[in-house]
Amino acid sequence: MRIVTFRLNGKVQHGVRTGDRIQIYSDTASAVDLAERAASLSVTDEVALSAVELLPPVPNPGKTICIGLNYRAHAIEGGNPIPDYPAVFMRCTTSLAAPDAALIYPECSDKLDYEAELAVIIGKTATNVTAADALDYVAGYSCFNDGSVRDYQRKSTQWTMGKNFDGTGGFGPELVTPDELPPGAAGLRLVARLNGEIMQDSDTGDMIFDVATLIATLSEGMTLEPGDVIATGTPSGVGYARTPPVFMKPGDMINIEIEKIGVLTNTIASRGTQT
Amino acid sequence: MRIVTFRLNGKVQHGVRTGDRIQIYSDTASAVDLAERAASLSVTDEVALSAVELLPPVPNPGKTICIGLNYRAHAIEGGNPIPDYPAVFMRCTTSLAAPDAALIYPECSDKLDYEAELAVIIGKTATNVTAADALDYVAGYSCFNDGSVRDYQRKSTQWTMGKNFDGTGGFGPELVTPDELPPGAAGLRLVARLNGEIMQDSDTGDMIFDVATLIATLSEGMTLEPGDVIATGTPSGVGYARTPPVFMKPGDMINIEIEKIGVLTNTIASRGTQT
Repeated sequence: MRIVTFRLNGKVQHGVRTGDRIQIYSDTASAVDLAERAASLSVTDEVALSAVELLPPVPNPGKTICIGLNYRAHAIEGGNPIPDYPAVFMRCTTSLAAPDAALIYPECSDKLDYEAELAVIIGKTATNVTAADALDYVAGYSCFNDGSVRDYQRKSTQWTMGKNFDGTGGFGPELVTPDELPPGAAGLRLVARLNGEIMQDSDTGDMIFDVATLIATLSEGMTLEPGDVIATGTPSGVGYARTPPVFMKPGDMINIEIEKIGVLTNTIASRGTQT
Repeated sequence: MRIVTFRLNGKVQHGVRTGDRIQIYSDTASAVDLAERAASLSVTDEVALSAVELLPPVPNPGKTICIGLNYRAHAIEGGNPIPDYPAVFMRCTTSLAAPDAALIYPECSDKLDYEAELAVIIGKTATNVTAADALDYVAGYSCFNDGSVRDYQRKSTQWTMGKNFDGTGGFGPELVTPDELPPGAAGLRLVARLNGEIMQDSDTGDMIFDVATLIATLSEGMTLEPGDVIATGTPSGVGYARTPPVFMKPGDMINIEIEKIGVLTNTIASRGTQT
């Protein structure tokens, strides 16, 4: 199933997308709720995909956990050692952006960079689960753009500030349930295109810590709850590490594509000028 | 005003505490809402403080932003340089603990440390505000214990994992409105007591980045929303930096006291054994 969260007639709703149509299930609390209960629910309405305003699959996650340096070549391109434990940081909800929305170009920096990532959306409460059991706790997968303001990311040892600028983290376009994908969404091509040009081109199977390992590692300390999101890290090819460096600017279009999952598209615009 | 958030008869409610009594204002969405609207609302009931289960002043903040190394002597005791920009990280809601509740002792570590901090609770939406205006956006102040699992904090360059273990971040006991305190809650004695013994003893005026500067710096990149929390960093005297190191263990009691704001008390207990 491909589950979309969207606004229609001023109301946040959830439905299953097939082609360019959405079958709406009302009385669902979230995309995760719909993923878990779809078999026992009835379709209440249908609408064209083009008629709705897509929102992130989970517009307001309890927590959005991000993993740094989870692809070998990306760790190396930034001059970092290969990690033996995941580098963990968090994004807040004000930093997220809907599919097809404009990412907000910062007023105070011209160093806005893209990071193509696989997002994992948690479906069941997970406390201290093993890697062997971990995939049972996944509601689905989506695309994520861990948009990063590089100069602010480096203002202290902690990356959080540069990872949390308003509306810089694209997330979507939809939640794809695990039955449509290989286990742990591994072995899928992951590509970032800036204005149509391929900037990152890797495979989700190249993660240093795979999805099951990440869930086990994180849940050893923190309980993962339904709707929590894990952005699993980005491969090589980010803008700041290129020669010369490439950053996004107003008017650009950035696409994050993951094979079998979909394409997340965002433009870039200064605050208040988004259309 | 001293505003408490509490559970009574299974329902989350908000009220103004005076002595050992709480005047309840129903139809309030949050402690921040009550702080902003108290003058136009009526008391609907009254209850003894001892009859309620206190919750954190904001049980589910949109974001909880933590500042590291914001006191000179604490930066030095950990061997860190004095920062020229705040070190920012985040805590998730599953990591918070109510006043008087037991902090959860980790199963996988014996390195649970305390950190006495002043918490700032945001009252109005703040985007790119100046330090001169910043205090207008504060709803109130409270105590925070940025409980840290030190070995997990150091497993990567990013501290987030060790700062987000379940139920390790005490927060409360109440929101104290700015009119009861010096501007920016500066110049207040801040003390941590472990089993009655003073471990940290400093002054909120010793922050490297004061409250107004933190709000201005953070809001340059991320919009602060009502109910967002800033934990402003801890002074020297933390357990890991002592000789020999001191860590909290089941059965301990930790108090964070801030002059004119109050005392936050938590015990320590293994998961599932909290009483």
